[in-house]
Amino acid sequence: MDKTIGDYLKKNRTRYLEQVKEFLSIPSISSDSSHKPEVRQAAAWLANDLKNGGFEHVRIFETAGHPVVYGDFLKAKGKPTVLCYGHYDVQPVDPIDQWATDPFQPVIKDDIIYGRGTSDDKGQVFMLAKMAESILAVHGDLPVNIKFCFEGEEEIGSPHLDDFVDKHLDLLKADVLLVSDTTMIGLDQPAVCYGLRGLCGLEVRLRGPKGDLHSGVYGGAVQNPLHAIVELLATLHDRKGRVTVAGFYDRVRPLSDDEKAICDKLSDDNALKKELDVDALYGEAGYSTMARIWARPTLELNGVFGGFEGEGLKTVIPSTATAKITCRLVPDQDPAEIGALLNIHFQKHLPAGVKLDFRLMDHAEPFIMPADHPALKAAYQALEEAYRVQPILSRQGGSVPIVNTFHNKLGVAPILMGFGLDSENFHAPNEHFHLVNFDRGLQALVSFLHHLPEHMH
Amino acid sequence: MDKTIGDYLKKNRTRYLEQVKEFLSIPSISSDSSHKPEVRQAAAWLANDLKNGGFEHVRIFETAGHPVVYGDFLKAKGKPTVLCYGHYDVQPVDPIDQWATDPFQPVIKDDIIYGRGTSDDKGQVFMLAKMAESILAVHGDLPVNIKFCFEGEEEIGSPHLDDFVDKHLDLLKADVLLVSDTTMIGLDQPAVCYGLRGLCGLEVRLRGPKGDLHSGVYGGAVQNPLHAIVELLATLHDRKGRVTVAGFYDRVRPLSDDEKAICDKLSDDNALKKELDVDALYGEAGYSTMARIWARPTLELNGVFGGFEGEGLKTVIPSTATAKITCRLVPDQDPAEIGALLNIHFQKHLPAGVKLDFRLMDHAEPFIMPADHPALKAAYQALEEAYRVQPILSRQGGSVPIVNTFHNKLGVAPILMGFGLDSENFHAPNEHFHLVNFDRGLQALVSFLHHLPEHMH
Repeated sequence: MDKTIGDYLKKNRTRYLEQVKEFLSIPSISSDSSHKPEVRQAAAWLANDLKNGGFEHVRIFETAGHPVVYGDFLKAKGKPTVLCYGHYDVQPVDPIDQWATDPFQPVIKDDIIYGRGTSDDKGQVFMLAKMAESILAVHGDLPVNIKFCFEGEEEIGSPHLDDFVDKHLDLLKADVLLVSDTTMIGLDQPAVCYGLRGLCGLEVRLRGPKGDLHSGVYGGAVQNPLHAIVELLATLHDRKGRVTVAGFYDRVRPLSDDEKAICDKLSDDNALKKELDVDALYGEAGYSTMARIWARPTLELNGVFGGFEGEGLKTVIPSTATAKITCRLVPDQDPAEIGALLNIHFQKHLPAGVKLDFRLMDHAEPFIMPADHPALKAAYQALEEAYRVQPILSRQGGSVPIVNTFHNKLGVAPILMGFGLDSENFHAPNEHFHLVNFDRGLQALVSFLHHLPEHMH
Repeated sequence: MDKTIGDYLKKNRTRYLEQVKEFLSIPSISSDSSHKPEVRQAAAWLANDLKNGGFEHVRIFETAGHPVVYGDFLKAKGKPTVLCYGHYDVQPVDPIDQWATDPFQPVIKDDIIYGRGTSDDKGQVFMLAKMAESILAVHGDLPVNIKFCFEGEEEIGSPHLDDFVDKHLDLLKADVLLVSDTTMIGLDQPAVCYGLRGLCGLEVRLRGPKGDLHSGVYGGAVQNPLHAIVELLATLHDRKGRVTVAGFYDRVRPLSDDEKAICDKLSDDNALKKELDVDALYGEAGYSTMARIWARPTLELNGVFGGFEGEGLKTVIPSTATAKITCRLVPDQDPAEIGALLNIHFQKHLPAGVKLDFRLMDHAEPFIMPADHPALKAAYQALEEAYRVQPILSRQGGSVPIVNTFHNKLGVAPILMGFGLDSENFHAPNEHFHLVNFDRGLQALVSFLHHLPEHMH
């Protein structure tokens, strides 16, 4: 990488870290409507930061939900245009009592920064901004054209992004989509990701008696919605960890032998057991751990609840019981079809004495990228320079729901080059981010912009 | 009943109702340690009320938990002694948003009083006190000797009452135990209860990965404690509503033909379906609804929870999942044995990849009373006079865990004559009590004291 920029990044590290701490301290939880003002505040912070960084046309676009922050610098005539996407919203923080530090008072300890959004995705959004800002500060121009599009609804499934992109096709037009919201293989093993799982999220609610009942007075006489829901949910998997919903696997694209071999090689079950503190791993029989995460679909219960949760006992038959569920999907599964299959399954297996409310809440298509795209080569080269090892062409078990949106609507080539680690507790208490990847990641991102025009001409 | 006392009760009705509202407004929730001061406040209120009523030796006895309120009036030489038991603690109030009025600001509407504890059991504790106070006010003495023993831990299983009774065997010595904590058959159909179900309460907690995980990153690789708990809990019942725990039914005393006939006659499935707003009732196949409630054991899930419960979705694999369970037990099941059988069942059916925490939390023996006891006759006569109909010898699906304690330790004959209705939402939002049963119930209680010496001599 350009040495003058390297020096610039070193010199400005402390200042950048103070800035990102300020950004992270805004509790921009998109799923909780009581945090709407803070989501807006984070958007304003980001827009202001882009302006200060020298970017043009900076604007906060309203949507029907949380806003989108846009900015650009389009002065590299004849060079590729890179659309940088990220999200400034974050996951909820419960169970809050399991956080060692305040999720919104970021703390740096042993070169690790702790706080909600440090790795997913505010920290990496900040890196995308600083990637271009640093080049601009040193050289006064950029080797490519840059557009930023940062949204505030990724953690709730980007419900208004499709509409936003449709309305701003020209504004967002680009050659490459650069996303830093995926993870590395390990602290010293960078990766560029060519495949993502999709998602189908839903809620199932069973309604029994019209109010909560005393289990002594009514116990034995009436269906208990909790009994019904455990019976119903227990029908979803067989004893081999396979999903039993009819048709669930019909469109699953099998792994190639090469892909299988990479997955098998990268599966380190003992390390994972140690990391998670479990005696045994568990999942669909017949696949290695990494194959199960990267390339096999799942159906996960994310929340089940009904009845009394307080201290002690309460002898109650609750009126309702609820389950929140997400399926992770792989090519070529279709989220809408999977949702419909699940609805059929629930209707078919519904126990007596309860009524079913089935609600689809979220969806994202699975994604897989053509492996020979020139932008992938630029990313590979940039990562190799910054980390001094060969990067891995990886897939991810998570979803970046917007990738299909941008790919389908704009024809951009997505480059998923993220710097988080799977062990960094995103979506969980004590989320953190290793600052060594703040430094190397910024170097890699800067290099990527420099190498891209060589490969895409 | 004595007409002068009838007049006295009429004259003092408004004053009594104001008093009971004051008592009910104290949030004496025994299961929630944050309400400890209010439990104590309710004890103090009750002790003060007994003193004002003319009772002697009124005292608040400390226990290792919440206190016991005692008082007596022992001047009926050669007459039976009646130990009146009740509890001044109440159930929690969640889900609080389902209450139409504040649970601790009692409201009277259409001669029904609404509020937590109106029927279970503060309202009826108050009636026991006023039963004796009114006779004392009119006549200056009582036809029997009276002792009051009101505890503050019934809703958490009376953990310190055994110890309290052991320490005060002489103080509590009596011929009859009078308890008003059971229900009537209907608004115009009084009952005296000769059988209660017992209880075995426990908590099961499954522990999986050491922290909450992202379902995209880890989904498919590791056991989800929610999957494990629904699988485990679904093994507890078969498709005919029977509990599948090995040995669960071994000691269950079969119903006699007479008992079966009464249960069948009292089962009004259509009325119950309407009351609960359900399309179908559900329970152990082969038994009528009332037989299932009064004389068959159950295993009920009172609470199941784990993972995300907030607005929207959260793609999390939770670290733990928990179930709160109570079994209702019938003669001659043994709570400790049932707890042990359940533990064996859970260990045997534990899914892979999780650890089990099994915790017994509460227990009460089932109870059945000899049907020919003279005190039962006095109760029958008193109820018949007050309600002008033949009372029913009933059983109850609920537990009054202290009945065995007093019966076993003191040799008292328990008379379970309560004035609540099953439809009055005790243990649920909008608990209430029909004041017609405040009036008739008080009359019946006064008559009971007057008739008791005739039958027990």
